[in-house]
Amino acid sequence: MPYLIPISSFDDPRIEPYHAIRERDLVGRAGRFIVEGRTVMDVALSPRNRFRIGSLLMAESRAGALDPLLAQAPDDLPVYVAPQSVLDGITGFHIHRGLLGIGNRGEDPDADTLLASLPEHATILVLGGITNHDNVGGIFRNAAAFGADAVLLDTASCDPLYRKAIRVSVGGALMVPFARGGAIDHLLDRVLAHGFTPLALTPAGSTPLIDSRPPARTALLLGAEGPGLPARIMERSLTVRIPMSGDFDSLNVATAAGIALHHVTAIHAR
Amino acid sequence: MPYLIPISSFDDPRIEPYHAIRERDLVGRAGRFIVEGRTVMDVALSPRNRFRIGSLLMAESRAGALDPLLAQAPDDLPVYVAPQSVLDGITGFHIHRGLLGIGNRGEDPDADTLLASLPEHATILVLGGITNHDNVGGIFRNAAAFGADAVLLDTASCDPLYRKAIRVSVGGALMVPFARGGAIDHLLDRVLAHGFTPLALTPAGSTPLIDSRPPARTALLLGAEGPGLPARIMERSLTVRIPMSGDFDSLNVATAAGIALHHVTAIHAR
Repeated sequence: MPYLIPISSFDDPRIEPYHAIRERDLVGRAGRFIVEGRTVMDVALSPRNRFRIGSLLMAESRAGALDPLLAQAPDDLPVYVAPQSVLDGITGFHIHRGLLGIGNRGEDPDADTLLASLPEHATILVLGGITNHDNVGGIFRNAAAFGADAVLLDTASCDPLYRKAIRVSVGGALMVPFARGGAIDHLLDRVLAHGFTPLALTPAGSTPLIDSRPPARTALLLGAEGPGLPARIMERSLTVRIPMSGDFDSLNVATAAGIALHHVTAIHAR
Repeated sequence: MPYLIPISSFDDPRIEPYHAIRERDLVGRAGRFIVEGRTVMDVALSPRNRFRIGSLLMAESRAGALDPLLAQAPDDLPVYVAPQSVLDGITGFHIHRGLLGIGNRGEDPDADTLLASLPEHATILVLGGITNHDNVGGIFRNAAAFGADAVLLDTASCDPLYRKAIRVSVGGALMVPFARGGAIDHLLDRVLAHGFTPLALTPAGSTPLIDSRPPARTALLLGAEGPGLPARIMERSLTVRIPMSGDFDSLNVATAAGIALHHVTAIHAR
């Protein structure tokens, strides 16, 4: 179990990485990301987390209660402990449940490297234009819940390691391997090159999801609520639909991902 | 199309119902609820909304842009228009996209009356201890998307007409008939009395959801994330599970509702 390092001043250089962290300025800068709260930290300190955690910062008031959590952490993990007043100053926002950590994202893999690493039987998600942090977080939560093997995100989609996306994913964003970047067309090229069958989810899909029999290597393609996937992408894919009632065509994209992942993994498990 | 009523002062008695509206103090008081934003208002002013809208209040700056929306509204609907400064004062919070409405909930039906009104083929949801507004909102969004016939909520669950629940439901809370109150045991009694087969969703369910063949009258039972449904409730139900991966047993309850509703309605459509 790591020992606790008391911090009494905002200006202590050891907590400099926590200064003024916010959604925007941390991600992509110095390759760091923020982990908040007990539930996500539980994932972050477990072997399920694919990333290295650099340090933790917690409120003094939480120190005892978090012992069971810290027991999983490596002995050499710096764990800084500060009064709430110091915490409020250093982070520039209220720390969710008095517990914060900084992770190091390392190099993101490219799509080809990631796809080449996957097993013969694999289910992946390909996201085009999912710009909303809640939706990307919700998709990663579902991807982790159903054991999806990887997620590819186009340039227009938001980063799964944004603070809010990690929190909404309940740590799923730390577990499911992903690659980012490139146009959705490029991602579809790579997916096809690696022998995946693309299944595009769209209200106009030719097959009801429940009747589709996804092959061993399936790539589920999801576009943003509203515009959806471009027609040229759907023309190169099998299209499936989730039938809905009347004119309330309003399934959340993360929920749609969950429904599709349930179907694919349940069929594969048969 | 209703004519617009200009309001220039915070103290105008016609907008008294909008004074200091907040989640807590409005719901249940005087039987009113709050509708916010364009997307939800679109539902609220359509025949899909089961409730009477008493008035609208909008920012002057929005007046022209909202004409297509107002064209659906009855001619005698009072539509108050005020400068943003007045709006900020009267409501005590920032109005979502400059558009607000007050609805009248009327009398909630009791579970028996609601169940007696349902058709021979019907799919309903029964919620036990769903206290989170986002989750209740998300469940109603999915219930509307899949055309669920009704939702029953026990005393411990939160009100679908809370401001945030309506917003998250994208108006689904205004569409799907519901009844509230009583213990979950009581709701299960009523559901059985009306010939519904209870299907309880639980990680320990005896049948995988995908293998279940829900009968014409199906009641999906959902408990809170974490504690789930009481054992005595599951003993009186068929139990179904959504198989998940490894130890990340963390599907959101609204997502689980969406997955189950998709399965039941897709099987019924065959």
